Amino acid sequence: MLKVKSEKELRLQFGFPKINSKQLKQMSSSQLKIELTETIRHYNSKGWSPATSTNYSFKDDTGIIWVSKSGIDKAQFDVSDFLTITKGGIACGEFEGIKPSAETLIHCALYELFPETTVILHSHSVYPVLISSQLSDKLSVTGYEIQKGFEGQITHDNTLEIPIFDNTQDIVTFAKTLLQNKYKIQNHSFIMRKHGTYAWGRNLFEAKRHLETLEYLCQFEWMAQQNS
Amino acid sequence: MLKVKSEKELRLQFGFPKINSKQLKQMSSSQLKIELTETIRHYNSKGWSPATSTNYSFKDDTGIIWVSKSGIDKAQFDVSDFLTITKGGIACGEFEGIKPSAETLIHCALYELFPETTVILHSHSVYPVLISSQLSDKLSVTGYEIQKGFEGQITHDNTLEIPIFDNTQDIVTFAKTLLQNKYKIQNHSFIMRKHGTYAWGRNLFEAKRHLETLEYLCQFEWMAQQNS
Amino acid sequence: MLKVKSEKELRLQFGFPKINSKQLKQMSSSQLKIELTETIRHYNSKGWSPATSTNYSFKDDTGIIWVSKSGIDKAQFDVSDFLTITKGGIACGEFEGIKPSAETLIHCALYELFPETTVILHSHSVYPVLISSQLSDKLSVTGYEIQKGFEGQITHDNTLEIPIFDNTQDIVTFAKTLLQNKYKIQNHSFIMRKHGTYAWGRNLFEAKRHLETLEYLCQFEWMAQQNS
Amino acid sequence: MLKVKSEKELRLQFGFPKINSKQLKQMSSSQLKIELTETIRHYNSKGWSPATSTNYSFKDDTGIIWVSKSGIDKAQFDVSDFLTITKGGIACGEFEGIKPSAETLIHCALYELFPETTVILHSHSVYPVLISSQLSDKLSVTGYEIQKGFEGQITHDNTLEIPIFDNTQDIVTFAKTLLQNKYKIQNHSFIMRKHGTYAWGRNLFEAKRHLETLEYLCQFEWMAQQNS
Repeated sequence: MLKVKSEKELRLQFGFPKINSKQLKQMSSSQLKIELTETIRHYNSKGWSPATSTNYSFKDDTGIIWVSKSGIDKAQFDVSDFLTITKGGIACGEFEGIKPSAETLIHCALYELFPETTVILHSHSVYPVLISSQLSDKLSVTGYEIQKGFEGQITHDNTLEIPIFDNTQDIVTFAKTLLQNKYKIQNHSFIMRKHGTYAWGRNLFEAKRHLETLEYLCQFEWMAQQNS
Repeated sequence: MLKVKSEKELRLQFGFPKINSKQLKQMSSSQLKIELTETIRHYNSKGWSPATSTNYSFKDDTGIIWVSKSGIDKAQFDVSDFLTITKGGIACGEFEGIKPSAETLIHCALYELFPETTVILHSHSVYPVLISSQLSDKLSVTGYEIQKGFEGQITHDNTLEIPIFDNTQDIVTFAKTLLQNKYKIQNHSFIMRKHGTYAWGRNLFEAKRHLETLEYLCQFEWMAQQNS
Repeated sequence: MLKVKSEKELRLQFGFPKINSKQLKQMSSSQLKIELTETIRHYNSKGWSPATSTNYSFKDDTGIIWVSKSGIDKAQFDVSDFLTITKGGIACGEFEGIKPSAETLIHCALYELFPETTVILHSHSVYPVLISSQLSDKLSVTGYEIQKGFEGQITHDNTLEIPIFDNTQDIVTFAKTLLQNKYKIQNHSFIMRKHGTYAWGRNLFEAKRHLETLEYLCQFEWMAQQNS
Repeated sequence: MLKVKSEKELRLQFGFPKINSKQLKQMSSSQLKIELTETIRHYNSKGWSPATSTNYSFKDDTGIIWVSKSGIDKAQFDVSDFLTITKGGIACGEFEGIKPSAETLIHCALYELFPETTVILHSHSVYPVLISSQLSDKLSVTGYEIQKGFEGQITHDNTLEIPIFDNTQDIVTFAKTLLQNKYKIQNHSFIMRKHGTYAWGRNLFEAKRHLETLEYLCQFEWMAQQNS
């Protein structure tokens, strides 16, 4: 007789506890920290964060920003690998003196530009790196059902644009570039040339949907060229 | 000494309880709901349902149709994410007022067209999207052993066709298109252009075999072009 | 403090009990049945057996051949999915009347051609199917370190050939083709055109090494053409 | 209510215990043996060690070198599959008479060339094999954020070179080639033509970051050519 699986068995089997969409939107900060940690490890298993790359953040229910520590192997990311930062991107409180991600100021700029944001994700998968090495200042797509993954998009029958910004080690300047180019950022994400993607949302569920939508579009656009 | 693994250990290791083909055909509705949930999560891990995309349904042993709720992250799909619908595609019973998948009417049309169907699956993998962006109204294949995965196909030495229908947000019209084009649907599946695949069967085992056969053929056809 | 993992923990984590090479060569039939079952599920997770395809066999320590039943989803393959066959490929003993794999006679031919064989594996991965759709009667490779995965190959600096036989539904005739073309089969494996690969060995360890070597070479040869 | 996961649950779920960067640098030899074993199995699941290929080593806290035994299926690699070797690459101590990896002298040469090294990793993934079949004596890359994964690289805006050495079965001579070409090896890694990659570091964390960086660059360079 087939034994009905308990919640615990499904968690061990697949790695993700079941959170319904309502819970995700109202998730407490401690729950969000756990869910985001699992998301980070999951995306690492997809090859989206090789060689300790990428960085992630969330805003807790008191408005404090938590960002991932610098140089952590994302296959082993743990809830203790987040630290609190000031709006200027410096580790604060009990974490004073610890090095946050080198790209922390990008996160600060995004929370400023899009105040409803509570989660920011980043990926170094190959497809955005490949596609941005060819295109100039944007990725433009039309007619894919997956476009509806971006909040605000209700049809495939529409052209949408994702901006591509040049990579730089001068993150202070890059953060300013974002602030000055808000009008280009229409779909909760952007690409850094030969670097990767950033996507964000009002909650983790939405941020994940945005990142996965952009990653899929980058993969599709690259593969479509192979046989054109 | 090598310890023989118990059924429970194999389940935890690989994620799927062993169901023999006879059990699958006679599976109770509660068992089917669990097995389909595991299939949904498994296909998500293969990249077939990014960004909350796809939808699934089954017909229970009283003839009621259960379809997946709208906007669920398929990595976290749970048995409680199915709801009952009327033949007109409206959530009913205890689920009244909850939003079923936007493509529910496609499922209703398929149960009407093919009354022996008890399970319908859907995929958004890249290969059907890629191949349908190039072809006109069908995918035509000849000579692959895998073609025998479609019920009714007993040889590789045969040409079979899978229809490609244009994507639309007007699902009422799309459902009618299916009803009017039954003669084109010869292999328990079809492709929606730049959207994905649908496949179905008399039970879950058969529906999975049909979907996996179509996905493999789309992948093969796309890759074959790269070196032609 | 880092807890040292027990054998049981490593098994649950990675799915394979540790068997040293000596044990594999002397494995009892019941152990071999379990190890082969895990291998079948593992290869399914790599995409090598979609849509219930492929078949496997082993020779037990009394010389009886066990082959996989027909039409089993290899993601759910279980130790009870093997049955005993006669040298003529008919299910016998307690399994009389059950349908063995449609390709059982291929296994019988291989045990006859190569009497030291105790395990035969089969794959439907895309790369042999792709490469065989282009080549005529053999895959020829030179200069890859991985070639040493074939028993008898001690250097990369050598040209080796893997025969490609045309696919057919007439397995009786195909088995005869194998028996008549033994001189072509020099590396414990062959390809069936637009179908897949067969590889075998004196034990499971060796059979796996042969299959993985061939699969890698097919993948490499296909990908190498993309940029030639 | 969402149950907070224990360390043990996360280990079982994802397979890697959480080790912070400080612990990795000060890891005891027994801990390092376990962590390296898990890394070997993890890389095998990524397809980086097919058909028993690859070899690995570490230097313990007494300065003794441990290298992987020859011919082990890396999906089943166990802590007991390491053995101690002399500086001349011969198994010693309790392991006298057991065959170490055929490429042991490569490891000995690297410990001699780079005395701070404590871990050496090796991969047979397809991308280095593909890229080295095309290039002459080096892989040259510019402008990728991932380049910063190599210790000493602080910007993407730099050209770095990874040497490609011809493969040979004469490992004594190959080891001498390395010793004579130290000036070419600037980024803690090299490629063996149509064979694979070697990467190393002052600890496991660093060695993994170096290997993953090189593997990513090889994959990127290969894929970039497809659409050039």
